[in-house]
Amino acid sequence: RAYCAMASAGKGLIFRQLFEPVSCTYTYLLADEKTKEAVLIDPVLEKADRDARLIKDLGLKMIYAANTHCHADHITGTGVLKKLLPGSKSVISKDSGAKADIHIQAGDEIKFGNFALEARSTPGHTDGCLTYVLNDKSMAFTGDALLIRGCGRTDFQQGCPSKLYHSVHTQIFSLPSECLLYPAHDYTGQTVTTVEEEKKHNPRLTKSEAEFVNIMNNLNLKKPAQIDIAVPANLKCGIQD
Amino acid sequence: RAYCAMASAGKGLIFRQLFEPVSCTYTYLLADEKTKEAVLIDPVLEKADRDARLIKDLGLKMIYAANTHCHADHITGTGVLKKLLPGSKSVISKDSGAKADIHIQAGDEIKFGNFALEARSTPGHTDGCLTYVLNDKSMAFTGDALLIRGCGRTDFQQGCPSKLYHSVHTQIFSLPSECLLYPAHDYTGQTVTTVEEEKKHNPRLTKSEAEFVNIMNNLNLKKPAQIDIAVPANLKCGIQD
Ligand SMILES: [Fe+2]
Ligand SMILES: [Fe+2]
Repeated sequence: RAYCAMASAGKGLIFRQLFEPVSCTYTYLLADEKTKEAVLIDPVLEKADRDARLIKDLGLKMIYAANTHCHADHITGTGVLKKLLPGSKSVISKDSGAKADIHIQAGDEIKFGNFALEARSTPGHTDGCLTYVLNDKSMAFTGDALLIRGCGRTDFQQGCPSKLYHSVHTQIFSLPSECLLYPAHDYTGQTVTTVEEEKKHNPRLTKSEAEFVNIMNNLNLKKPAQIDIAVPANLKCGIQD
Repeated sequence: RAYCAMASAGKGLIFRQLFEPVSCTYTYLLADEKTKEAVLIDPVLEKADRDARLIKDLGLKMIYAANTHCHADHITGTGVLKKLLPGSKSVISKDSGAKADIHIQAGDEIKFGNFALEARSTPGHTDGCLTYVLNDKSMAFTGDALLIRGCGRTDFQQGCPSKLYHSVHTQIFSLPSECLLYPAHDYTGQTVTTVEEEKKHNPRLTKSEAEFVNIMNNLNLKKPAQIDIAVPANLKCGIQD
């Protein structure tokens, strides 16, 4: 089992994990080394210049900027990146209710070069949450459905602990045990986990569904600082018309 | 060329990049999946519990906690980790002048299972700076010698811009172009780069030596916040006797 991002070795996948420290958000760049076609997952508005610069440095052509869901804790960079990198399209789930060039749903694929990301529906944090799975199932981008030793909140937007529990167990824990899981956030300085690890060590999702629901309904978390600004903005790709 | 940490695919290397946000320090966990022997590079005191927990979760046995150099911006976690994970040894360069169980120098190897890290001497930020190169040359841990699109400071400890310039050009830029470079710090949310990328896009090290020296001598940076506490502590593995 490879615990590092090496499962697609030699297949020509370019991969970069990027971090935004205020909302502790991870953005992911994936590209086909041969065709140079690139996808950016969950870019953050404040880091759009950095991301565009890196894409240019690497000689890549961003074709899609995709969100895992309509975020409540930061404003998406997709709208601004479309302007910085003309020719690219924004992508989000149909169920998110958010504006984008392309609306996808479970089973749809985002193709870039010889690679593709398969969209799996993993609601529970929001109704429109997608998990993007690389076509060889070596890595998956879980958004806020599954975090490293944690999971996304279920106490705002369309949060529902029971839905989240089923999403993770049926759509994420069914992936190969060595599949690398890359979340949308981490607050502890960790960068990646695996299906096997979370099945063994996730303190919430190793519990029964009833216990999980009880934990999630009693977290008593503060309202996200940016929610009143971020959600309306993210419903429009992060930019005002 | 693989831009992601996948060059050792299928060879059984476990790899994790970890982050400490106050000093923006990266810690690296490398282990042999078969023998479970693990090495931690540049652990940070405040994250020792997290690192020990991860090593236990993954069923690994840490045999070495190695520093790239005597850090001025954070206190090393090696001393505390030796207590949390008995049986492990601290490692640093002889030239650092710091206390450790094992002192190494250019050409020495840190072996873990079927893997090894070769120590290259890359002075200039400090006299004792080492770059650790994985035996298959797929990845290197550059400490503060080379940062992503930058480099370490040369205005304190034994800093010397000319030495640093030669270190990077002879010891790091001589690695294969696709070699992944993992720095001790990043302040922009980037996680990794390659030899090829830095040879092309590093704004300082693509300059002539004279220009580089001039840039480095005119940065006018603030004194590192933790230097008066960190350096004396790091000379003793981060713990008081
Ligand atoms: Fe979210
Ligand atoms: Fe340093």
